[in-house]
Amino acid sequence: MEHRVNYRELEDFTAKVLQRLNTPEEYAQRTAEILVSADLRAIYSHGVARMPRYVNAIKSGQIIPDASPVIVSGGDSYIHVDGKDGLGQVAGYFGMKETIERAKKSGVCVCAVKNSNHYGIAGYYSMMALKENLIGFSVTNSAPLVVPTFGKDLIIGTNPISLAVPCAEGDLFVLDMATSVIPRGKLEVYDREGKKMPEGWAVDEDGLTTTDPTRVLHNMINRKGGGILPLGGFGELFGGHKGYGLSVFVDVLSGVLSGADFANKVYKAKHPNVGHFFFALNPELFLPLGEFKNRMHELITLLKTSSKAKGENRIYIHGEKENEAEIEQKKKGIKLTEKVFGTLEGLAKEFGVPMIKSL
Amino acid sequence: MEHRVNYRELEDFTAKVLQRLNTPEEYAQRTAEILVSADLRAIYSHGVARMPRYVNAIKSGQIIPDASPVIVSGGDSYIHVDGKDGLGQVAGYFGMKETIERAKKSGVCVCAVKNSNHYGIAGYYSMMALKENLIGFSVTNSAPLVVPTFGKDLIIGTNPISLAVPCAEGDLFVLDMATSVIPRGKLEVYDREGKKMPEGWAVDEDGLTTTDPTRVLHNMINRKGGGILPLGGFGELFGGHKGYGLSVFVDVLSGVLSGADFANKVYKAKHPNVGHFFFALNPELFLPLGEFKNRMHELITLLKTSSKAKGENRIYIHGEKENEAEIEQKKKGIKLTEKVFGTLEGLAKEFGVPMIKSL
Repeated sequence: MEHRVNYRELEDFTAKVLQRLNTPEEYAQRTAEILVSADLRAIYSHGVARMPRYVNAIKSGQIIPDASPVIVSGGDSYIHVDGKDGLGQVAGYFGMKETIERAKKSGVCVCAVKNSNHYGIAGYYSMMALKENLIGFSVTNSAPLVVPTFGKDLIIGTNPISLAVPCAEGDLFVLDMATSVIPRGKLEVYDREGKKMPEGWAVDEDGLTTTDPTRVLHNMINRKGGGILPLGGFGELFGGHKGYGLSVFVDVLSGVLSGADFANKVYKAKHPNVGHFFFALNPELFLPLGEFKNRMHELITLLKTSSKAKGENRIYIHGEKENEAEIEQKKKGIKLTEKVFGTLEGLAKEFGVPMIKSL
Repeated sequence: MEHRVNYRELEDFTAKVLQRLNTPEEYAQRTAEILVSADLRAIYSHGVARMPRYVNAIKSGQIIPDASPVIVSGGDSYIHVDGKDGLGQVAGYFGMKETIERAKKSGVCVCAVKNSNHYGIAGYYSMMALKENLIGFSVTNSAPLVVPTFGKDLIIGTNPISLAVPCAEGDLFVLDMATSVIPRGKLEVYDREGKKMPEGWAVDEDGLTTTDPTRVLHNMINRKGGGILPLGGFGELFGGHKGYGLSVFVDVLSGVLSGADFANKVYKAKHPNVGHFFFALNPELFLPLGEFKNRMHELITLLKTSSKAKGENRIYIHGEKENEAEIEQKKKGIKLTEKVFGTLEGLAKEFGVPMIKSL
């Protein structure tokens, strides 16, 4: 059975649970809003389904819920943030907001964040720049779930890249992609459904390609070797080394440069020490805003109106599917599986927060 | 038969041919050096094998060989360059050099270049930043050879992304990758050798996956539909939409933002109007340089010393293979195929430049 819940109620509920765990109201609301923004966009893997993990991380002391991010150093075009092992959404929001403020004045600003935690969807932060008509860029490192090309150890994360570009009314371009060929959640779905995976998604304990999701998940959990492949898949034949390179690219900026942990050191110490990197750029440095948006419109139109492959009737722009899901789910409620709904019921009971109703 | 030629002689020869076509000495040498740097790194598709195309483009007026790039506007952390339809290497070098100078002072600088031409390997420009201990980023749009996910028209380029990161002696990280699954040259090799391609490299005139390189090349040349797939391959199953998104990402920065042409408009007008985007960042904004390099060393070591997949004995860092080729070819000479050597002989004859000797 599937449930639909009002997104504002889901935000309130999530914030209340976090508050019960000693998260200040503002931080709880921020985190809840960013988690629910993922559900709204149908990126359920990064939404409230993660709440049990957040709750456990707060309970175990991995996440310090009332820690406030601080500025380590900064200038017209850069800022260095220490998340103080608080909630990733709090550090991420703080960092990107400052980045945007500085870019509004100087035209361009970069930001590196250390001592942070899981920050939700990378796209939330890149999209923050859109309200100010800036181009926004957001990357983060993450738990090691991916093997490098020719390797079999989990050394790199699914390290996402997001770029959001200001567009005319009705247009959008919001790229938000993991640099792995698939997210871990996809393995779990195939495992649950007892299905074979396509070759090129993951490797077994010998580092060889396999179609068995159960074996891969088992190996990953027990660190027996094998895991998810980088974008481009197995070996170099389809460019797997490129996805591997993009993942390292992300880790250099968000992990090495920020002073956070990197590669398989992330999530290893008492505090996960995740790192993020943001970038905001004012297109008006180069073109009048209207002209820039008109050119984006032309690019988008060229792509969307180009000939479709046989059997296809639509070419998508990145972010379109997510945007359509958001519009629909704001109206009709967010879809939650029975399992996730049950998880929320468990949290409601544990923390004495009134359960939200299924619409 | 294969030839080996001294790289300095190859540079001189290439520069002399360009000078015969009214290219000022400085611009000819710059272009020759950047072309030969690709051959040295064994990225032969972007080396002197391209000279006939450069010669034709100069003859036809597409490239204005004595055009000097100019600064349209600039500040502490940005610069906008107009290449004036001159050689891409001249505009690219000019733009990245200015970017580096400004980043040395302000810590960060972005640069967009319009009215340019093919600039060679993206990695040449990102690596320019290394000498100054800056992180360098370089992207360019290019001739449309790639179809968007679910499409079949050639709308996007192989639009490469390069990131070069300053490292300790003996280490390196130089990512330089097309955002397509393969370069066009790979289709040509399979065509020449009469081999079937793996599924997932290219699509036919219906936009459906095919293993026939001859058919794809024929269709591409005659604009009959079909072409190379983005990184991630066909459809969305292996993340083809991600490669497509990365290609658009590059085009937004290098094409739309710069004021150059973009998508399938590049190479359509009298002048190709290619666009580039550069970025230089001083890691010392965030960490002392020594610490940054130590952390890079640790990241690289973690990757290289991790367990190998069965049958593999080495995990590569991006740029290692190219660096090893460069060291070897600087000593032993650059490998040129009989075909490319013959092309150079043709140019020698046409322009009355003494042919270089095969070592």
